[in-house]
Amino acid sequence: MKEKTTRVTKKRSAKQASTGELPVLQCGCALPDAADAGRKALAVDPDAKDRNIKRLRRIEGQVRGLQKMVEDDRYCADIMTQISSVHEALRSVGRELMRNHLKHCATAAIRSGPEQSEPMYDELLNLIYKHSR
Amino acid sequence: MKEKTTRVTKKRSAKQASTGELPVLQCGCALPDAADAGRKALAVDPDAKDRNIKRLRRIEGQVRGLQKMVEDDRYCADIMTQISSVHEALRSVGRELMRNHLKHCATAAIRSGPEQSEPMYDELLNLIYKHSR
Amino acid sequence: MKEKTTRVTKKRSAKQASTGELPVLQCGCALPDAADAGRKALAVDPDAKDRNIKRLRRIEGQVRGLQKMVEDDRYCADIMTQISSVHEALRSVGRELMRNHLKHCATAAIRSGPEQSEPMYDELLNLIYKHSR
Amino acid sequence: MKEKTTRVTKKRSAKQASTGELPVLQCGCALPDAADAGRKALAVDPDAKDRNIKRLRRIEGQVRGLQKMVEDDRYCADIMTQISSVHEALRSVGRELMRNHLKHCATAAIRSGPEQSEPMYDELLNLIYKHSR
Repeated sequence: MKEKTTRVTKKRSAKQASTGELPVLQCGCALPDAADAGRKALAVDPDAKDRNIKRLRRIEGQVRGLQKMVEDDRYCADIMTQISSVHEALRSVGRELMRNHLKHCATAAIRSGPEQSEPMYDELLNLIYKHSR
Repeated sequence: MKEKTTRVTKKRSAKQASTGELPVLQCGCALPDAADAGRKALAVDPDAKDRNIKRLRRIEGQVRGLQKMVEDDRYCADIMTQISSVHEALRSVGRELMRNHLKHCATAAIRSGPEQSEPMYDELLNLIYKHSR
Repeated sequence: MKEKTTRVTKKRSAKQASTGELPVLQCGCALPDAADAGRKALAVDPDAKDRNIKRLRRIEGQVRGLQKMVEDDRYCADIMTQISSVHEALRSVGRELMRNHLKHCATAAIRSGPEQSEPMYDELLNLIYKHSR
Repeated sequence: MKEKTTRVTKKRSAKQASTGELPVLQCGCALPDAADAGRKALAVDPDAKDRNIKRLRRIEGQVRGLQKMVEDDRYCADIMTQISSVHEALRSVGRELMRNHLKHCATAAIRSGPEQSEPMYDELLNLIYKHSR
């Protein structure tokens, strides 16, 4: 996280864009940089990114704390309460990501017309109902 | 986790037991070893403990993977899908802990009579409705 | 709901009890009265029952209100907020039922020994992780 | 539900639009017809509306079924399983409404520019994280 990017460099060719099997691709988001790099965000707010990195480091610490609690045979109910605070912290990360997604990728798809917006509605509904908890 | 404990050593005095403000304490669970050690489980199944340590190490790795995804500006929806798999993994830990809690602490409290079982019902309901998601 | 029962009449024969395929059955709960009547609770606290009947009548009214909101093309976000309050009300019913279940059926099973308590732990874990949300 | 509306009649004056305290209002959605009528959807797909009315009628029947189960002292775990199927059915209604909301109100707000899209992101995040479960 040395450099703060507000706009992700998109190294895709027109060919890639036209052969992508996901219709979402053409809206400019979710395009892999390279074969092995995974899909990228269209844009990421640097403050949101910072907050999420910090949150995830704290979550990593909480998970190590949970390992210690389990190793020490701590009271199950106390460990479970701690687990629920990790769930809560993960939801904060998810919420920040969802805001970024709505603001950039979803907005770009929705503004570009029905070809992009229809698959974006499907993706959003899946994220909301399958992956937000 | 060098030694597998099936029964947690309870170093409490009668005094401690009688001054505990939580009625659950007398059932033998949730008693702190020492001032700084936190409450202990009545008993922990060694297999369940092993599985949970392994799960939590895998979760720690997943959380580090999430940090990398955020640093790399990966597609928000892909990060969110990954977050949801961490939630799922945490729920497996919680479920294992809940089984251990029911089997040992809750059972001891429920068998000991109404003085222990009533606060245990309250604790279980709180865990189920506040802390299991 | 004319009569308040604190203990459910169990019209089962010894034969029924011995042929029940669910081990939970022998603890006295979950036994059908008759072929067509469904499984019964071991005992139901009359106050809890009253509260649940009242809650469910209110929920029925809320669901009719939702129908009207949909018919009137009300703002989607307002309908969704209303739906979430029905979820909340249903969870109150579930919580009351879970308390009753812990207090009577689960306690009877857990006190009766491992033959009953083991399947009860499984049932509780299923209820908690599959059916409490 | 005798007539199927695809576009909700908007009886608001320019004055109403300009004095609305919620910025979302100007996008054309969420405007009350009249003082007592509540906010309206910008548009409702007639098929989605039909499906939701049908689902809500079925849910009303399920809630009446729950009342009967409670009155009959049915096994708590069976009632809880039934409650969880009502939750599931309500989520289907919510999902359909969310799709309509994304497709019409949210899309109109997002296309109209930052003045409308920013409050819409907030509203969506609230719906997703507070009201979708």
